[in-house]
Amino acid sequence: MEIQVMKNILGENDRLAAENQALFAAQKVYVLNLMGSPGAGKTSLLEKTIEQLKDELSLAVIEGDLFTAKDAERIDRYGVPVIQINTAGGCHLDAAMVQKAATKLDLAALDLLIVENVGNLVCPAEFAVGEDDKAVVLSVTEGDDKPLKYPLIFKESAVALINKIDILPYCNFNLAGAKEDITALHPGIKIVELSCATGEGVAEWCAWLKARVGEKSS
Amino acid sequence: MEIQVMKNILGENDRLAAENQALFAAQKVYVLNLMGSPGAGKTSLLEKTIEQLKDELSLAVIEGDLFTAKDAERIDRYGVPVIQINTAGGCHLDAAMVQKAATKLDLAALDLLIVENVGNLVCPAEFAVGEDDKAVVLSVTEGDDKPLKYPLIFKESAVALINKIDILPYCNFNLAGAKEDITALHPGIKIVELSCATGEGVAEWCAWLKARVGEKSS
Repeated sequence: MEIQVMKNILGENDRLAAENQALFAAQKVYVLNLMGSPGAGKTSLLEKTIEQLKDELSLAVIEGDLFTAKDAERIDRYGVPVIQINTAGGCHLDAAMVQKAATKLDLAALDLLIVENVGNLVCPAEFAVGEDDKAVVLSVTEGDDKPLKYPLIFKESAVALINKIDILPYCNFNLAGAKEDITALHPGIKIVELSCATGEGVAEWCAWLKARVGEKSS
Repeated sequence: MEIQVMKNILGENDRLAAENQALFAAQKVYVLNLMGSPGAGKTSLLEKTIEQLKDELSLAVIEGDLFTAKDAERIDRYGVPVIQINTAGGCHLDAAMVQKAATKLDLAALDLLIVENVGNLVCPAEFAVGEDDKAVVLSVTEGDDKPLKYPLIFKESAVALINKIDILPYCNFNLAGAKEDITALHPGIKIVELSCATGEGVAEWCAWLKARVGEKSS
């Protein structure tokens, strides 16, 4: 009976996600659903991405958090349109929340919309929000066992960002092994090693993202 | 309508959690529900705790993961009874899962049962499993903004363990500020700073845990 309920909720979410996708397609906005554990570095990566791309692309951000507008305040400093969604305890964003937030943005003026999901390596992967691609951020401090323990999010993501590579020497993290596991779960996935502290890998990530935005707008 | 469903599921969980609590009380087993983000260091802390306490207390572990038995294998090396629950995608343990796993343990012989929840800073806090106390592990690599962004888990926990204190110099983490936020959310909460890498703080944590186990068995 619980499974039946889950199916109904996901079915309704899929319907709204398809509506969002049609809306974003009509406005030629590329949408990225950015996911990862609490503290993986999603907002820091967003800051680096905005620094690198804001003169080339028209972009906006939707921030998802249980409570507070801390992340939106961080993005607002860059002069980029940002909408904060507070889920009030909810463990993921869903298509309905993103649909409502998107009405507050001038989609026609945008090339790129990044949706930063609630910090959670499990539930966000189950709920499409109308994105073109999902991305997962995994920091080396979280441990190299995480891809096999949380496989869905790696299977669903077009790109895996291995973050905090600057503190790899202080962590017991098998980088080659983690990359092998990610590729085994999702052959063909793009993997970028990066550090928001040093900037390493940010250019490679932004080049990938820019190419994806270009494919959508052309 | 969705809220109604949630209430029903939680109501059923509360009923089963109360059953578990009665079972554990009858056997005088103290039960800890250990929670935290993926990679916060829950299993490493368990390993250190077992090393310190296994000659003094009779203990067992229930491991919760979406997939794999990696964590149970780590615990099994210490010669401690361990049951692995695989939630197959589920984002938290619930009372029914723990009830089923507990039937495989000799509860009458135990002083302490530690339930390591799925790595997730959100959902596990909502589902009691029949525990005496909840504990949350937060690593300094996750960022000092996490208590205010994920308040429920800190409000629910009797103890907050600030882990990976050895790499504090390499992280941008305001320790005093994080502790203030945790205490503001939950006045009276026990906070322990620790490092599973260096062993710092482990004795303080184990002393707290041993005292709680003692209160239950007396």
